Amino acid sequence: MKDDVKDRNAPQSPARRRLLAGGAAAGGLLGAGALGLSGGLKAARAATAPAAADSLPPAVPDWTRYLGAGVDAHPYGMPSEHEAKVVRRSVEWLTATRESSVNFTPLYALDGFVTPNGLCFERHHGGLAEVDPAEHRLMIHGLVDRPLLFTVEDLKRFPQENRFYFLECAANSGMEWHGAQLNGVQYTHGMVHCVQYTGVSLRTLLKEVGLKDKAAWVLAEGADAAAMTRSIPLEKALDDCLVAYSMNGERLRPEQGYPIRLVVPGWEGNTWVKWLRRLELGDQPWYQREETSKYTDLLPNGKARMFTWVMDAKSVITSPAPELPMQQEGPVVIKGLAWSGHGAIKRVDVTVDGGINWQTAQLHGPVLPKCLTRFTFDWVWDGKPALLQSRCIDETGYVQPTMAALQEKRGVNSIYHNNSIQTWQINENGSVENVRLG
Amino acid sequence: MKDDVKDRNAPQSPARRRLLAGGAAAGGLLGAGALGLSGGLKAARAATAPAAADSLPPAVPDWTRYLGAGVDAHPYGMPSEHEAKVVRRSVEWLTATRESSVNFTPLYALDGFVTPNGLCFERHHGGLAEVDPAEHRLMIHGLVDRPLLFTVEDLKRFPQENRFYFLECAANSGMEWHGAQLNGVQYTHGMVHCVQYTGVSLRTLLKEVGLKDKAAWVLAEGADAAAMTRSIPLEKALDDCLVAYSMNGERLRPEQGYPIRLVVPGWEGNTWVKWLRRLELGDQPWYQREETSKYTDLLPNGKARMFTWVMDAKSVITSPAPELPMQQEGPVVIKGLAWSGHGAIKRVDVTVDGGINWQTAQLHGPVLPKCLTRFTFDWVWDGKPALLQSRCIDETGYVQPTMAALQEKRGVNSIYHNNSIQTWQINENGSVENVRLG
Repeated sequence: MKDDVKDRNAPQSPARRRLLAGGAAAGGLLGAGALGLSGGLKAARAATAPAAADSLPPAVPDWTRYLGAGVDAHPYGMPSEHEAKVVRRSVEWLTATRESSVNFTPLYALDGFVTPNGLCFERHHGGLAEVDPAEHRLMIHGLVDRPLLFTVEDLKRFPQENRFYFLECAANSGMEWHGAQLNGVQYTHGMVHCVQYTGVSLRTLLKEVGLKDKAAWVLAEGADAAAMTRSIPLEKALDDCLVAYSMNGERLRPEQGYPIRLVVPGWEGNTWVKWLRRLELGDQPWYQREETSKYTDLLPNGKARMFTWVMDAKSVITSPAPELPMQQEGPVVIKGLAWSGHGAIKRVDVTVDGGINWQTAQLHGPVLPKCLTRFTFDWVWDGKPALLQSRCIDETGYVQPTMAALQEKRGVNSIYHNNSIQTWQINENGSVENVRLG
Repeated sequence: MKDDVKDRNAPQSPARRRLLAGGAAAGGLLGAGALGLSGGLKAARAATAPAAADSLPPAVPDWTRYLGAGVDAHPYGMPSEHEAKVVRRSVEWLTATRESSVNFTPLYALDGFVTPNGLCFERHHGGLAEVDPAEHRLMIHGLVDRPLLFTVEDLKRFPQENRFYFLECAANSGMEWHGAQLNGVQYTHGMVHCVQYTGVSLRTLLKEVGLKDKAAWVLAEGADAAAMTRSIPLEKALDDCLVAYSMNGERLRPEQGYPIRLVVPGWEGNTWVKWLRRLELGDQPWYQREETSKYTDLLPNGKARMFTWVMDAKSVITSPAPELPMQQEGPVVIKGLAWSGHGAIKRVDVTVDGGINWQTAQLHGPVLPKCLTRFTFDWVWDGKPALLQSRCIDETGYVQPTMAALQEKRGVNSIYHNNSIQTWQINENGSVENVRLG
């Protein structure tokens, strides 16, 4: 077998022979003086460039010298063991029990705008319900002409929709109302994910049961131990909501409501009822626990903001971040995400001096409404302290505010709907800290 | 604990009390006469409709009566156990060894156009290489001004690109040249997947090393035991190729070339060299094994088509399919995928009578160039035999051909580049068969 492998790897060109004849792959930072780099990157790159190849030919590595695993090895594939740290994480002290808690998306490690299903943040109120799809039913009743029970297979026979949407918990960044509390973008902003959902339009299902004239609200109820319930105005239900059965191509993950969940584009995640089992039509909201005691904002005047469903425009730099300190001076890609519950992101600006100067970042298309948008900004770090922020503008012209501006309106009692500008302080040693600038 | 759960689930509206008071969730097909369905769906749905809710109130299911798992359960999430059959599968007799074989994407089970990373088809020529990203290097040399060695971290410091592309093996549907051979869309068409790739433009890297005037071709070489090598013309390398390190947001999966692979949009998958370790610039192609002995098409006149890189426009119905027989008469969503290596899909037509009548399917956006496009067609099955086909047209005006048309040009010796129209025959018992119509 070894001879076979050797034959297959036999050099086939003079250049390849040169390459294979080399010594150990030590890597490193050599030959910088020879590098021609364009524009402003030149000086910075000179100190930190890739190694000159002729002085450091790589050896044939071990993994080229034996046959790897065959195709039986991984019927359902998993990430490399070298990426084992890239997982969802929770915060022990955040909630009273693990069954009513949050597992945060590792935003610092991700690219693009699609969140892989295995890393989508999860929030439970009664633990992860284990629903048998064959036994599951969706009931639609109340102020309707024909109350109906749907199996999951019934739902798949209706015309389907496929759309990318972000899902953000209303409490995302909530701890930050009280200063810079959490050191890591996974924890400050990781209650958001974005996938391609597939399902049937809620409008289609409501048409199927027929609405009585007085119908004005929909109560959505989950089949989990918390029987999560939220009131949704009919106007939204008839607009762009879905009863979804797939995410990123495959069936919903158990922790995301398998076999069906409500998708309420642009609205706080708590309304996206998982393990959806019931939709009731009524003429007024139900004032459930999760829309009165919770998911409201106590204002300075003693009143509470209620039914504040839409997630306003927000952005955050995901790298560098506290989890990803600066490695060296020179070129670095500042990466981040922006989103708005009101539509598409129009522009993202980035500052590296705490807001004195702003520059426009590059948006990576397709830029879709109510969907995460990846932005990047190519920067050259000079090794000195810096204050990084991003600020987005959505298609309605709304500009992401500072925390000071939010607190002026809402005081300091809020937990939900913090969409303020986030600051990362880069220290001289390259470490990155969560700080409050105003 | 039981009391706690009961309290939390206490009925909160009269309607809810009614619901909870019901009997067993038997499900079934009741109350059809009461259903008002619009337009052409009415008659068909009447026989097969969701159950009337009042006659069948569902019991509170078991899974609502206990707390589910907490957020520690799944740091990296996996699909439901009820979806355990949805995995990549291989064909024992297709290749001599498992290390040089194919694992097919279960297209029949998927929605949307994003393929989840765990289900992306894989093709190996020397097994799955286990590369240590810290030790891995990419060498760019040959007809360049400054040969360089790049670490993976070096690559991440260049401006990044994020783009959705399909990847199709040139041999996808290859067995079908000789009639209807494989019974299942996973096997006939499952050598294709589509993800959002993130990486650095190859153009950027070639600019970094500087090209000598005579440079006209790039040799790409992998670090696997097969040391996969392909020649790529410089024009394509400078157009839209990437050296990618992420897919669907997270790092490349091991079987997809971790830590880096070449992305050659719209071109046959074999050129997308995985575990990429070397790019050599030359003035002519290298005529490697994989572009002479393999990945060429022997024509009737004894000559072979060579360097046929672009994947022409193709489509297939993914459901119904042999794996997903018809369950009942009435409404059904015909779903499929279309793609073209030349650009965006412009239109997909569907026939249910073997090509006598064609109707235009709905495309689910965003419709992106060199990317899978999901299409659906809402059909009402009358329970009689039918012949389903899809036919796509891309933005260049090219129309997906029949196998007869392909064979007229290329004869019967081909394996690669079969983009012909696929036929599924629906039998009276609902089973679905792969048949050849012409």
